[in-house]
Amino acid sequence: MPTSISTVTVLGAGVLGSQIAYQSAYKGFPVIAYDIDDEALRAAQKRFDHLAATYLNEVPGADDETTQAALARLTLTTDLGQAADADLIIEAVPELLDVKQQTYSTLATLAPQHTIFATNSSTMLPSDLKESTGRPDRFLALHFANRIWSSNIAEVMGTADTDPAVYEAVVEFAVAIGMVPIELHKEKAGYVLNTLLVPFLRAALELVAGGYAEPGDVDNTWRIGTGAPVGPFQIYDVIGMRTPYNIMSHGDEDAQQMAAWLKKNYIDKGKLGLATGEGFYKYF
Amino acid sequence: MPTSISTVTVLGAGVLGSQIAYQSAYKGFPVIAYDIDDEALRAAQKRFDHLAATYLNEVPGADDETTQAALARLTLTTDLGQAADADLIIEAVPELLDVKQQTYSTLATLAPQHTIFATNSSTMLPSDLKESTGRPDRFLALHFANRIWSSNIAEVMGTADTDPAVYEAVVEFAVAIGMVPIELHKEKAGYVLNTLLVPFLRAALELVAGGYAEPGDVDNTWRIGTGAPVGPFQIYDVIGMRTPYNIMSHGDEDAQQMAAWLKKNYIDKGKLGLATGEGFYKYF
Repeated sequence: MPTSISTVTVLGAGVLGSQIAYQSAYKGFPVIAYDIDDEALRAAQKRFDHLAATYLNEVPGADDETTQAALARLTLTTDLGQAADADLIIEAVPELLDVKQQTYSTLATLAPQHTIFATNSSTMLPSDLKESTGRPDRFLALHFANRIWSSNIAEVMGTADTDPAVYEAVVEFAVAIGMVPIELHKEKAGYVLNTLLVPFLRAALELVAGGYAEPGDVDNTWRIGTGAPVGPFQIYDVIGMRTPYNIMSHGDEDAQQMAAWLKKNYIDKGKLGLATGEGFYKYF
Repeated sequence: MPTSISTVTVLGAGVLGSQIAYQSAYKGFPVIAYDIDDEALRAAQKRFDHLAATYLNEVPGADDETTQAALARLTLTTDLGQAADADLIIEAVPELLDVKQQTYSTLATLAPQHTIFATNSSTMLPSDLKESTGRPDRFLALHFANRIWSSNIAEVMGTADTDPAVYEAVVEFAVAIGMVPIELHKEKAGYVLNTLLVPFLRAALELVAGGYAEPGDVDNTWRIGTGAPVGPFQIYDVIGMRTPYNIMSHGDEDAQQMAAWLKKNYIDKGKLGLATGEGFYKYF
């Protein structure tokens, strides 16, 4: 069984799936991008074209040749049988447990024995999915961040069943596509980045929702005190209010109160962040 | 009663007290620096001379003339009666409740009626001290960060008794000495900066002490994921292990376990951070 990865499939060509596929192609891998129907594939093609333009503008060294060559390495398909034929399948389908489990159950019957399955799930642990893969030893999480070309971390997290050689092959693949691999030694909800971000953003919201300080002053404090380019409320505005709201409304009593405050003062007023032109700050 | 501040005393010329005094003098204020005996004053004079050299190197626009003029505006004294004669007294004496209360009780009898008292305490609330001042309406917290010339935030926090005009005068003073004032609307242990830092640093330590990830990977994640210049373990190394240890050893059960882990793996091995040449990273 080969441990080195030379062909890649990305399942789900949404915002992050399309970035994973394009980045892998940009770094020289032939990539199959799978989505469920022709409409989804047309949207995917638009995303890929847009990514080519974005890379041209934002990625050092990118030029017409390299960004177009990446497009040429991408094969779009709605045929899961075709998609299953790869050394590595990165799953980025919707964050619904039954959708993911069904996807893995089908893949299990279609993919070659040696194929490694990796989930990009943000909200589930690989343990939640491993049984449905039929190959827990060749399954793990490989979690990317939005704006993969600059926020180039890839969190790698296996279960107790993951073969160390498979884990290592995926770490090497992450490096090969230009990522800085972040190796988790065991499962942790939120991986590394969200484990840091969630309590940080919560503490910031506590200051403002509790009436202690204004968002601009909190951000100033963090920027000046730590040298960071952005403060927590600028991060809220980039992420948007919905994800923090969802996390906090499933938390303890204090968190639920903050979620209610966020809903009343921001979400219900359409102030969802940068994407809507206003969040904690106004953008137009 | 004048509300504008033109003369300043700093009580305690330790690491931060000397920075507050020098910065105020650098911005044109005549400053009295008080400490308890001649030995403390000799140490203070060395700190001021060192600060003059540091400003010359690190502060944009600083030159021999401005850094020496700041030194000339500083008066060192062990006479609390002389020190008490100022529009604003910033207290930066050791973080011991009885020492601070005793200082305020004495000051209360020595200082002119109009004098504003401000504590730089990191660990106490102004409410813990206000009774001993004899003038709760003219008392509040004014909290600075280390390396005041670049980390130029001044957190301003009153009690329910603080006169709003006094609060405003202190905010204006903070601006006048080149600070970005961070206005707290009510008392909060840890002010803004530590309210953000403490849970952030705790979450990072949880990842490492829990065996989930290595310090370098956690720092990479934060730097790449948020664009920050430093990750949490670089911050630990700058702060040193003792303060986080003290905070966590007074926390909940999980925090106490992390404190014990920090003690066993770092403090007991002399790995206290940057100042000792090794912490989570090695520096020589």
